[in-house]
Amino acid sequence: MSGATPSPGPVPRGDALAIARALIRRPSVTPADAGAQAVLASMLREIGFEVFSLPFGDGDARIENLFARIGTGSPHLCFAGHTDVVPPGDPADWRSGPFAAEMDGDVLVGRGAADMKGGIAAFVAAAGRHLADRDTALSGSISLLITGDEEGDAVNGTVRVLEWMAAHGQIPDFCLVGEPTNPERLGEMVKIGRRGTLNATVTVEGTQGHAAYPDRADNPVHRLLRILSDLTSAALDEGTPFFQPSSLQVTSVDVGNGAFNVIPARAGAKLNIRFNDLHDGASLSDMLRATVARHAPRGRVDIRVGGEAFRTDAAPEVALLVEAIEAETGRRPVLDTGGGTSDARFVARYCGVAEFGLVGASMHKVDENVPVGELKQLQAIYERFIRRVMG
Amino acid sequence: MSGATPSPGPVPRGDALAIARALIRRPSVTPADAGAQAVLASMLREIGFEVFSLPFGDGDARIENLFARIGTGSPHLCFAGHTDVVPPGDPADWRSGPFAAEMDGDVLVGRGAADMKGGIAAFVAAAGRHLADRDTALSGSISLLITGDEEGDAVNGTVRVLEWMAAHGQIPDFCLVGEPTNPERLGEMVKIGRRGTLNATVTVEGTQGHAAYPDRADNPVHRLLRILSDLTSAALDEGTPFFQPSSLQVTSVDVGNGAFNVIPARAGAKLNIRFNDLHDGASLSDMLRATVARHAPRGRVDIRVGGEAFRTDAAPEVALLVEAIEAETGRRPVLDTGGGTSDARFVARYCGVAEFGLVGASMHKVDENVPVGELKQLQAIYERFIRRVMG
Repeated sequence: MSGATPSPGPVPRGDALAIARALIRRPSVTPADAGAQAVLASMLREIGFEVFSLPFGDGDARIENLFARIGTGSPHLCFAGHTDVVPPGDPADWRSGPFAAEMDGDVLVGRGAADMKGGIAAFVAAAGRHLADRDTALSGSISLLITGDEEGDAVNGTVRVLEWMAAHGQIPDFCLVGEPTNPERLGEMVKIGRRGTLNATVTVEGTQGHAAYPDRADNPVHRLLRILSDLTSAALDEGTPFFQPSSLQVTSVDVGNGAFNVIPARAGAKLNIRFNDLHDGASLSDMLRATVARHAPRGRVDIRVGGEAFRTDAAPEVALLVEAIEAETGRRPVLDTGGGTSDARFVARYCGVAEFGLVGASMHKVDENVPVGELKQLQAIYERFIRRVMG
Repeated sequence: MSGATPSPGPVPRGDALAIARALIRRPSVTPADAGAQAVLASMLREIGFEVFSLPFGDGDARIENLFARIGTGSPHLCFAGHTDVVPPGDPADWRSGPFAAEMDGDVLVGRGAADMKGGIAAFVAAAGRHLADRDTALSGSISLLITGDEEGDAVNGTVRVLEWMAAHGQIPDFCLVGEPTNPERLGEMVKIGRRGTLNATVTVEGTQGHAAYPDRADNPVHRLLRILSDLTSAALDEGTPFFQPSSLQVTSVDVGNGAFNVIPARAGAKLNIRFNDLHDGASLSDMLRATVARHAPRGRVDIRVGGEAFRTDAAPEVALLVEAIEAETGRRPVLDTGGGTSDARFVARYCGVAEFGLVGASMHKVDENVPVGELKQLQAIYERFIRRVMG
C-alpha cells in the first residue's frame, strides 16, 4: 500500500486500521501535535461525540489535549491515552518511513503504532461500532481523555485535563488507559496499579575532631552508617499477590572530607523508595524520621513523595475487562502493578482505573508496529468491554 | 631579674636554670636554629662530650641536629630531645618577652621552657653533676640526640640522626625522650609507647541502573554500607592495661550521585585506625581486605600504615626510671601510651625508649613556663636515673 499524503478526511467508522494510519501520519513527536488531535476530534465528532479542545501551558510549553464525550448518563466510561510519540531516531533506519503508516504484509509499521495511536484507534473504532449497532439510545456515556504530553513532562496534560473535568462535572465512573500492557501477546496482562515512589535526603550533624581522639568528637559518618544500615538490612516487606516487594535504594552518600585524620562535621545521603500498597508516603516518612532520630539527635530528613502506591482491582469494571479479554483471546490476563509510571497514577486520584492495550515489545524502537489481527482483536475486546459496562 | 643580652658564654655546670635560660634566649622557632645548638654544643664540650654536628637537608629544608657522647662503654644511655620550638604568637601577649627567659618570681617564662629546652637543661645539668661527682672513670656512656625539627616536618631530624648513629655504631641500649609528659604535676606519667595509625581507602564497583529496578543493577552503596557497618559495629578490642581501645573512624564516604533515581556505578570511603599492640598494620590490612571481599567481590582497599603500635615497658631501664621518679617526687608514675605522636616512635625501631619530662600544661601556649623547683626536681630525677643505669 502507498504512503499517501496525510489527510484528515473521512475515515470508515469502526475501522481501527484506517483510524490508526490516519493518526500515525501526523508526526506528533512530543510535545508537538502536528494536527493529530484535530484528526481525532474530527473522527469523534463524526460519530456523535462532543469534543472540548483543552490546550494548557504557554509558548513552548503549550500542549494540545482534548476531552470528548457522548451521552450524559451513568455509567460513565472514559478511555485515556495520548497522541504524542517518542522521536523516531534516524528515519533511514526504518523499513518504511516512521510516519508513512505503511503495511508490511499484515503488519502496520510506524511510530505510535503500539504506543499508542493503535490503542486509540481500537477504542474509537469500538465506540463507533457500539454506537452504530444500538437500537436504543445510549444508557450511560463514553468519553475520551487524550493528552499530547504523556511522553514529555506530563505537566500540562492529563493532570490539567483531570482538573478541568473535575471542575466541569466530567469525572467518569471508571477509566481505561490504553497504554501497551502486554509483554508478548495480547491478553497477557492488565495493569491495575503502580508502586509509589519517595525520595529522601538524610543529613546528620556531628562534631568535628581529630581521628586520634574520637571521644572528643561526634562522628556523623558513624551515625549515618547506623541509620542506613537499619534502613537497608531488612526488607520493607515480602511483596503482595499484586505487588513486588517494596525496595529502598541508597543512591548516594556524601561527606566530601579530604583528610583521613579528621572526623567531619556533617554527612549526608540520598535514597529512593519504591513501595507497594502495604505502605504510604506518610507511614514511610514516619519510619524514616524515627530511624534518623534513633541514631542521630542532630539528624534530619527531607522527604518528597513522588506518588502513592495505588491498586484498583477492586473496581467491578476490572472484572468485566478481564472477562472481555478472556472471551476474545482465550487468555486470562495477569493483574499486574510493575513497570514504570504512566498517567494512570493521576487518574487513580479521581476514579477507578485499569490499563490494557496492545503488545509493547516494539514500543519506543525502530520499526514500531502492530499486526492488523492484534489491532482488530483489541478493538473487539474494547467493544465487548463497553457493552458489558453499559449493561 | 634582667632580660640580659643572650650569650653563649660559660654557664655554671650543673645549673639547670642557667642552661635553660641560655637556650631559651635563642629564638629557634622551627625550623630555625638561631644558634641554639651551638650554645648546647659548647656546654656539652665543656663537660667532656664529643659533639657531632649533623645538619640534614638542603636549602630551606636544612635542619641542624647534633649527636654528643661521652664514654665508649656499655650501658649506653641516650637522651633525645629537640631545640626547636613552636612560634610564640604575638610577643605583646606575653607577660615578658617569649625569648627573654625572665623570671616571674620563682617561675621561668619563655617559649620552650616546658617543651623542651627545660628538659634538655635538666638532663645536661644532671649529666654534668654525675660526671663531676665521680671518683672513677665512667663505666658506660651517656649521649644526647638533639634535633631541630621535632615541631616541624620531622623528616631531616631524628630519623636521619638515627640512621647516622646506626651507621656509626652509636645506637644506645636505651633512650630517654625528654618531652613534657606530666599532665599537672611532675612524676605523674611516663610514656612507654604509642598507638599505631593506618589509613585506608575502600572502593566498591557496582552496576549502574534505575532505582525502580534494583534487581537489574548492583548497588555499590549497599555493599559499602555492609562493609562499613561490619567495620564499625563492633569494637576492635577493649584496650589493654597500657593502651586505650583501638579505634576505627570512617572519615568520609563519597558517591557523588546527584540523582535520587539512579543506582550509581561506584562508591568509596576513607577510614583511619588508631591501634594498640593487640594489632599490627599487617593484621589490620588482612582484616580490612577480608571484610571488603566478604561483601564486594568487585571491591578494593588501598592501605597506608603510618606507624606501628609500640610499647617498651619491658625494658629494665623503665623500672629504674619509675624508681627514680618515685624516690624524688613520692609519686608512682602511670605508664601511659596516649596522646599524639612524638619522635619516640622513630627511636623505638632501634632500642628501648621511654618519655619523661616536665609538666606539659603550658606548652605551645602564651607564657609557657616552668617553676624553678620543678626544673631542679627533674634534674634530680635524671641524675638518679643515670646513676641507677650506670650501676
